[in-house]
Amino acid sequence: MPTYCLTLQYDGSRYNGWQKQGNTSNTIQEKLEALLGRLYDMPVEIAGSGRTDAGVHALGQKASFRIPAGANRYDCRELTRLLNQYLPEDIRVTACTQKDERFHARLLAKKKLYEYRIDTGETADVFQRRYALHLSDALDLEAMKQAAGALTGTHDFKSFCSNKRMKKSSVRTIYSIEFLQKGNLLTIRYCGDGFLYHMVRILTGTLIEVGLGRKSPDDMKRILAARDRTQAGYTVPPQGLFLVSVLY
Amino acid sequence: MPTYCLTLQYDGSRYNGWQKQGNTSNTIQEKLEALLGRLYDMPVEIAGSGRTDAGVHALGQKASFRIPAGANRYDCRELTRLLNQYLPEDIRVTACTQKDERFHARLLAKKKLYEYRIDTGETADVFQRRYALHLSDALDLEAMKQAAGALTGTHDFKSFCSNKRMKKSSVRTIYSIEFLQKGNLLTIRYCGDGFLYHMVRILTGTLIEVGLGRKSPDDMKRILAARDRTQAGYTVPPQGLFLVSVLY
Repeated sequence: MPTYCLTLQYDGSRYNGWQKQGNTSNTIQEKLEALLGRLYDMPVEIAGSGRTDAGVHALGQKASFRIPAGANRYDCRELTRLLNQYLPEDIRVTACTQKDERFHARLLAKKKLYEYRIDTGETADVFQRRYALHLSDALDLEAMKQAAGALTGTHDFKSFCSNKRMKKSSVRTIYSIEFLQKGNLLTIRYCGDGFLYHMVRILTGTLIEVGLGRKSPDDMKRILAARDRTQAGYTVPPQGLFLVSVLY
Repeated sequence: MPTYCLTLQYDGSRYNGWQKQGNTSNTIQEKLEALLGRLYDMPVEIAGSGRTDAGVHALGQKASFRIPAGANRYDCRELTRLLNQYLPEDIRVTACTQKDERFHARLLAKKKLYEYRIDTGETADVFQRRYALHLSDALDLEAMKQAAGALTGTHDFKSFCSNKRMKKSSVRTIYSIEFLQKGNLLTIRYCGDGFLYHMVRILTGTLIEVGLGRKSPDDMKRILAARDRTQAGYTVPPQGLFLVSVLY
């Protein structure tokens, strides 16, 4: 069956996240499935590389779907044009490629890159209010980098997961945590093989608590070992979080 | 009388511009005057350096007001804190200074810097949809720079003014028009002693028409000489326009 992979950019501000769920409506997945259903005259299921929470943004989310050969009627260029014509203007298809039939955006994802943006200006930048957490307190960046060093590698990240009934493995690998300061904007960039529910937001909250002196870089080992959510830092709000890219 | 000057940043997306007018409500001036009125327990009139249209943004608008000595009750720091506490989050006071009693944000403005942002990416960037005009057609930047050269200097800009009943002089000086390309974002930056109604947006529309090959750089002299709005290019939409700063 012809299989397609879309690269998507979206402003998550007014959506209930990526994934359609029992009671939740107004999700990005629904918007896409409804539109694809109309374009192909049949129900189409789309698989995102992973869910993004309500208010979280994407620069390069990936999502795949299959169309029975008989119903296939658009090439990638045409499909991109049609989707961008009918999607709300806060969701854009930036690329579309036809893939091997076995391709699946979630199951085959190898690496994900997320970033969390912090507006460190004294006054909150109005143009960043939906795209960064405003935090004017001074942050000890060196301590944060040291803590980040203790968090990279392969660990059980159960302390950094909001899902208490997580039954599957909570072992993940973080390849790198980078800090980029540009003007008042501090970006923390996480590259890993996958992230647990709320994991990037809890990692960021914990690093911020280190930056504020409320936790020490040396606490990271103990927090990881505890496998207990209450030991890690707070969950930062969603608006600073961006899914940057997914690698296969 | 104690006189204050505020530096303001605002996202103009949901406002009917700076200036309160007969029937218009939901203006930035109104929001500020209503709040200042409550803080000082008396009507306060605030003078912006100039009006910005509906949907136009500001990085550094200036606005001044006077308070009778008997009613003066806050220093600049306190006033900034109170204003930012009660203003909507899309309007911020980034600075407040006490000025000489003769200071007036509009009457004494010497130079203004505006910029117009164009998203030149093939697909519109969702994060720029309220802050840039999306234009994916190729632009001849060299032709635009040449046209801009013909527009700088002191000229009668009547052809670049939407106000047909303009009675005052339409002679203005443009000190510079700069082009900055950063990724997909093309910024055109205008520095002048003042700008007529819609002038920056008509200048930009005219430069875009040159960039698209619909007008030639050599047309600029003729357009200026015509003193006729119909000779210049179209008025670009407001969302790409930013009042960057005002100099005194």
